[in-house]
Amino acid sequence: MLLCDIGNTHFHFWDNGKISHILPKSLHKNMFNQEIYYISVNAQHEKLLNKTFKTTYDLESIIHLPTQYKGLGVDRKAACLCVSDGVVVDVGSAITVDVMSGGKHQGGYILPGFNEFINAYARISPALQGHINFGLEPSALPNTTKDAIGYGVIKSTILTIQNTIGSKKAYFTGGDGKYLAKFFAQAIYDETLVFRGMRISIEQALQKRRKQQGIQEKQGQNKEQE
Amino acid sequence: MLLCDIGNTHFHFWDNGKISHILPKSLHKNMFNQEIYYISVNAQHEKLLNKTFKTTYDLESIIHLPTQYKGLGVDRKAACLCVSDGVVVDVGSAITVDVMSGGKHQGGYILPGFNEFINAYARISPALQGHINFGLEPSALPNTTKDAIGYGVIKSTILTIQNTIGSKKAYFTGGDGKYLAKFFAQAIYDETLVFRGMRISIEQALQKRRKQQGIQEKQGQNKEQE
Repeated sequence: MLLCDIGNTHFHFWDNGKISHILPKSLHKNMFNQEIYYISVNAQHEKLLNKTFKTTYDLESIIHLPTQYKGLGVDRKAACLCVSDGVVVDVGSAITVDVMSGGKHQGGYILPGFNEFINAYARISPALQGHINFGLEPSALPNTTKDAIGYGVIKSTILTIQNTIGSKKAYFTGGDGKYLAKFFAQAIYDETLVFRGMRISIEQALQKRRKQQGIQEKQGQNKEQE
Repeated sequence: MLLCDIGNTHFHFWDNGKISHILPKSLHKNMFNQEIYYISVNAQHEKLLNKTFKTTYDLESIIHLPTQYKGLGVDRKAACLCVSDGVVVDVGSAITVDVMSGGKHQGGYILPGFNEFINAYARISPALQGHINFGLEPSALPNTTKDAIGYGVIKSTILTIQNTIGSKKAYFTGGDGKYLAKFFAQAIYDETLVFRGMRISIEQALQKRRKQQGIQEKQGQNKEQE
C-alpha cells in the first residue's frame, strides 16, 4: 500500500513501511506506479499530486476523530488516532501539539516550526540573522546574539510543550520530531504516526463496509425467505 | 533635553518627559529644532535621523554596562542601567529579556515581537493567516485555529519569560510591554526605561568630565603655586 501525507513543505510517502520525504519540485510520475491514498493540508500541493499521478484517493472523509476543535488539520487527526491517552507533537513546518484523553481529542495548539521561527528574527533586523545551535537545551543565560536567538527558539518551544505534557506520555513525529523528543524524558518518537492513523482509518472504513455488506446480504437472504 | 531611541520599526522620542513614537516615513525636519541625543540599533534609520536633523549626538560610546555579553544592543544596555537587581523585558519589534544582579548584566535572550511571531505562521500556510486575540492568558486548550495560534504566541512568550523571572522583580518597557506586563504579578511597566538609562549615562559622563576638569584645574593651580 502506498500512502502520502501532503504537508506544507514536503510530500511524505509511506511505501509498505519505507518512508520518503519529497519536495514538490522533485515529485515525478515515474516515482510510483501504484494507487496513492493521501491526506493533505496544502491545496496547491494536493493539486500537484493529482496532476502527477493517475490514481489517487483522498482519505480525508474517512478520518474520524472525536473532537470539539473546528478546522483541525487532517494530519493532526490521523496522528491523534494512534494515541488514546497522551500528547501528540508533530514537528514539521509548524509544530502542532494535541492532547488526547480516553480516545477523545481535548484541544491543541500550534507553534512555528524551527525554520520559520528563526526566519522571524531575521525579518526584525539583519543583526538577528543567522543559524542557531541545535545542541543541548540551553541552561545558562546567553552571552552572544546567536545564543540569545537559539535560547529564544528552543527554550520557548520546550517550556511550552513541557507545560502541556506534564506527567503525561508524549508521542513525537515529523521531520524535527526526533531532535525535539530528546529534551523530554517521557517522549516516544514515531516517524510513522500519521501513516498509522491513515491505516487505522482505512481499516475502520473497510470494517464498516463489510458490516454494511453483511447486513445487506442478510436482508437479501431474509427477503428471499419471505 | 531631546532624546531619541532608534529602533527597528519606530523612532522613539523623549522630549522633556513627553514620549512619541514616529515611523521612519513620518519623520520630518520641522518636528524638532533642538539638539538630539540618540542611540540606535538600526543603521538605516540612524542615517535617516542624521539626514533629517542638523545637530545629533550618538550616545553609544558613553553607555557603559558591566557585561560579558558580546554585541548587546545599546537600547538593552540603557534599559538595564536603570535596574540593579531584576529582569528587564523590552517588548518591541523583538522581545529582549535581560537579567541584572548586583548592578551587573548576567546575560539575556531574544524572542520575536508579537508582529513577526504571528507573521511566521502565515508564512507556513495561508490556513494559519490571521489576527489573534490579545485578551487573557490562554488557560484552556484551544479548539479553533485562531486560538491555537494565539495560544502558541502568547503562552510560549509568557512561559519563557516567567521561567526567567521566577521570584525576581521584573521591569517591562516597549510598545507591547504594558500589555505583556499584565500577565506577571511582580511586573512594573515603565515606558521611560531606555530614556532613563540614556540620562543616567549622560549624567555619568558629565560627572566624569567635571571630575577631570576639577583635577586639571587643581593641577593648574598647583603649577601656578610652584
